[in-house]
Amino acid sequence: MLREEDLSLLRSRLSFWEHLNEGERELLLNGTSPAHFSAGQSLHCGERDCIGILLVKSGSIRIYITSEEGREVTLYRLEAGDICVLSASCVMSSIDFDVSIDAETDCEVLQISAACFSRLSAGNVYVELFSYKLAAERFSDVMWAMQQILFTSFDRRLAAFLLEESAKSQSAVLHMTHEQIAKYLGSAREVVSRMLSYFAKEGYVTLARGSITIVDAEGLRRL
Amino acid sequence: MLREEDLSLLRSRLSFWEHLNEGERELLLNGTSPAHFSAGQSLHCGERDCIGILLVKSGSIRIYITSEEGREVTLYRLEAGDICVLSASCVMSSIDFDVSIDAETDCEVLQISAACFSRLSAGNVYVELFSYKLAAERFSDVMWAMQQILFTSFDRRLAAFLLEESAKSQSAVLHMTHEQIAKYLGSAREVVSRMLSYFAKEGYVTLARGSITIVDAEGLRRL
Repeated sequence: MLREEDLSLLRSRLSFWEHLNEGERELLLNGTSPAHFSAGQSLHCGERDCIGILLVKSGSIRIYITSEEGREVTLYRLEAGDICVLSASCVMSSIDFDVSIDAETDCEVLQISAACFSRLSAGNVYVELFSYKLAAERFSDVMWAMQQILFTSFDRRLAAFLLEESAKSQSAVLHMTHEQIAKYLGSAREVVSRMLSYFAKEGYVTLARGSITIVDAEGLRRL
Repeated sequence: MLREEDLSLLRSRLSFWEHLNEGERELLLNGTSPAHFSAGQSLHCGERDCIGILLVKSGSIRIYITSEEGREVTLYRLEAGDICVLSASCVMSSIDFDVSIDAETDCEVLQISAACFSRLSAGNVYVELFSYKLAAERFSDVMWAMQQILFTSFDRRLAAFLLEESAKSQSAVLHMTHEQIAKYLGSAREVVSRMLSYFAKEGYVTLARGSITIVDAEGLRRL
């Protein structure tokens, strides 16, 4: 069941709300339910499932692509207040690619089912526009990621990643393996380990089993 | 002045036409004009100019991004019948990245000015939806390009490129320099030259000054 806070989240985040008639609002509320995803859970993968629109209430969702050999490249992340639209790509005729979507941490979301969103979208041009405008925002995220991947040399990417993770967890100590970092950056473990050793030698970080401590954030930022 | 064929192109390609009232149609026709671009001409670069929507009547337009060091990566191309929408990104609030756009060959287009498209888009939700749906199609193109660049090894990318160019020009002889190919593939001239020598040694192609002849298309396809 939807609670009062869920209703106000829907009203504030779905910009098409004011363009819905009574029947459409009822359809929307009946097609929306709270859902919980556990850290590491796969929400959407290729064309297998179309789980609809997700409004993130808490936690972090990662959107990425995977090569045939299993290499992953992170496109962007969604946090509290964000809306995941590529999980409903089956509803959007102009989107003919697919991505993988994982819960990166435990997540609470409001889920609008694909069937419900599809009906609303077919009958109300404002709903359709809403989803395509969101897709355009994600397009912008992907272009940013693409420029980082193609044009930034790896030392700068790794430095940016460490600073970002440190800011996110509000701690200078990062508990991540080199393997995990490689996965996020679409690189190989050996490349990450080599660059981290270089960072340690330069005095930017200290390394311990399973953790990395930033000791010279200014140095990393200069990269 | 717009000719009869231009009018029917607008009517057939602009799916919002039927949702325009008389005044809006007049605004559109007054804001649209035929334009010619010469091969190599830059149409749009970063945030400098917002030239509006382009309907391609003939020729080929290339959309690409450029690194600070001048490296180019082609995102996609538009040909006769296609519509260029990122040249009007200033009108679209949800798009906050920018690309470079060049005429790859001599081009004839119909150009809808940014001012005209902006007014139509602000007053008619179907016009706005049209531009965001087109952007979503280009999003799909970019995802495809990204997967090619990140996940396909270079021999396969070069083989695919040669076959594609050969199909496009309906000829086994390609008149392109290694430098040009490198530019299209976001690579370096030396890398292209090395791989082409390898292809020649394997009997897939023969090389001459300024041209490449495909002699074993099947071999390239197998890559």
